[in-house]
Amino acid sequence: MIRRIAEIGPAIPLIAIHGGAGTMSRAGAATGQEAAYHAALQAVLVPAQQLLASGGCALDAVTLAVELLEDCPLFNAGHGAVFTHDETHELDAAVMDGATLRAGAVACVTRIKRPVRAARAVMEHSEHVLFTGAGAEEFARKHGLELVDPSYFSTEARREQLRRALATDRAVLDHDGAALAVSSTPSAPLEERGKMGTVGAVALDAQGNLAAATSTGGMTNKQPGRVGDSPLIGAGTYADNGTAAVSCTGTGEMFIRLATAYDLCARMRYAGLSLEAAADEVVMRALPAIGGRGGLIALDRHGNLSMPFNTEGMYRGHARVGAAPQTAIFR
Amino acid sequence: MIRRIAEIGPAIPLIAIHGGAGTMSRAGAATGQEAAYHAALQAVLVPAQQLLASGGCALDAVTLAVELLEDCPLFNAGHGAVFTHDETHELDAAVMDGATLRAGAVACVTRIKRPVRAARAVMEHSEHVLFTGAGAEEFARKHGLELVDPSYFSTEARREQLRRALATDRAVLDHDGAALAVSSTPSAPLEERGKMGTVGAVALDAQGNLAAATSTGGMTNKQPGRVGDSPLIGAGTYADNGTAAVSCTGTGEMFIRLATAYDLCARMRYAGLSLEAAADEVVMRALPAIGGRGGLIALDRHGNLSMPFNTEGMYRGHARVGAAPQTAIFR
Repeated sequence: MIRRIAEIGPAIPLIAIHGGAGTMSRAGAATGQEAAYHAALQAVLVPAQQLLASGGCALDAVTLAVELLEDCPLFNAGHGAVFTHDETHELDAAVMDGATLRAGAVACVTRIKRPVRAARAVMEHSEHVLFTGAGAEEFARKHGLELVDPSYFSTEARREQLRRALATDRAVLDHDGAALAVSSTPSAPLEERGKMGTVGAVALDAQGNLAAATSTGGMTNKQPGRVGDSPLIGAGTYADNGTAAVSCTGTGEMFIRLATAYDLCARMRYAGLSLEAAADEVVMRALPAIGGRGGLIALDRHGNLSMPFNTEGMYRGHARVGAAPQTAIFR
Repeated sequence: MIRRIAEIGPAIPLIAIHGGAGTMSRAGAATGQEAAYHAALQAVLVPAQQLLASGGCALDAVTLAVELLEDCPLFNAGHGAVFTHDETHELDAAVMDGATLRAGAVACVTRIKRPVRAARAVMEHSEHVLFTGAGAEEFARKHGLELVDPSYFSTEARREQLRRALATDRAVLDHDGAALAVSSTPSAPLEERGKMGTVGAVALDAQGNLAAATSTGGMTNKQPGRVGDSPLIGAGTYADNGTAAVSCTGTGEMFIRLATAYDLCARMRYAGLSLEAAADEVVMRALPAIGGRGGLIALDRHGNLSMPFNTEGMYRGHARVGAAPQTAIFR
């Protein structure tokens, strides 16, 4: 009887997050540095878990989690975002509400302190889904969001990554890839070459609603104006109570070409796959078939959680209400 | 025996195009004006059909068709694009190759004469899928595409539409919608209120490959920086030889929220629906369920073509190699 109640009753609220996927640092991670990443993930999970425990909604939980990930300099979003080729920052973010299929996103913004809040404002205060560039910033300003000098996003570690990426570009031309073995941030557990840097969150609340959010600083040394999968609804971010909430990280272009986040949901809805089977098909078969590397976090309304990645590691963690948060980096 | 060969042989190459969907003009279309739209659609179909007849590929056919639609001032893309609220033009375009799932897109560009060519260049000459704004223009310039003064896109008819839209905005505030009955271009067969203006093409070539392309000037009086579904792979544009080539037109935000173009393909692949059934489900059920209005053109590798719309009309046409081009506006 208790078992039956557990089966048909509302699922236990849950927050899950990621901080990007990638290969292991060739220089090897210092133990202290690895611990710093676990601690940073914990510091995001705990308040989001508390929010859900006190009856907060999934949309607020993913927004809070992504804000905290944006504020943390270890992850490539908000403060600590990577540099473009022109030594600027261009930030993208999206959020989606699984209960209503409403969504909001911003792309190529340079002065919005917390891009995920701007994405949320677009969702809640406009009839549009996606704003880019100066138009997105003007929208954010009108809605009272904090704008900062672009230097706010810069950290010395990211500037050093750009220097190394620029040097590698030249080295690739000169030495046919020999310089690719240079790890740009030797002390991080995962290689910070900038291709996989994204943060995201998915949540299930006590009302059975799902939400997803993603934010990124893009790729180190990227050409200005490039937009990856993160702010694109259906590519890097999707949420539908009927299927799943999904946030992706990886080689963004491949995720766009496969409409990855939505594809996972479509495999559940139309092919009848479980969350885990759909996530596995997408990450372990469909993406590798076109050279796509990375991972995703996906959650359904029954509280099933899947966090597959086809790289060596993905910064990730989850916390069910009433249980200790769990974090992981490698397999 | 002949019948069997017809069944297993390659399908007859085919181009299909649309020039936007919408409600009938309340002022009623002058007969001559309706004929002008039919003639304009014919003038696009004929060269694209010839290209396919002479062995050209689907990708070249959709690029050519959309270029010609961009050049035609009757349609909201390229020359003849609508004005933003700030009396500027912001253009979006995308192209996708169904054989390889490669895709390219540009958004919020203001000086690229033929945005679909820029989308094609992004697909062919970069590792990225989507570029926005000045970064997209710099990319186009580097690849030798023609840039023009923004005034190239302006027509007196579109400027008049903006004036009326601005007046309507004020009127809505003052008179609670009474001014909505004002038709902004009384002589066009479909009402040109700017919400539905998009052009697109899908094609099947003699090799059995599919391609899709879409281009738009966005919405009259839109807020700068807003991006609709047209340049978003999976939302307004998708092509996969295994399912279909799709180009959408309508209330873009709803198409984004449902990942409409990809959803049609997913219903074919995972639910086993025919092209026609999938297109019908998407346009007549899924979109209306969230208030989405518009239509799409969809084509599979067997040469099945579906062009459903849930509005009163959609400018559209198609031409199979060896047959006379067909054009239509209303049901």
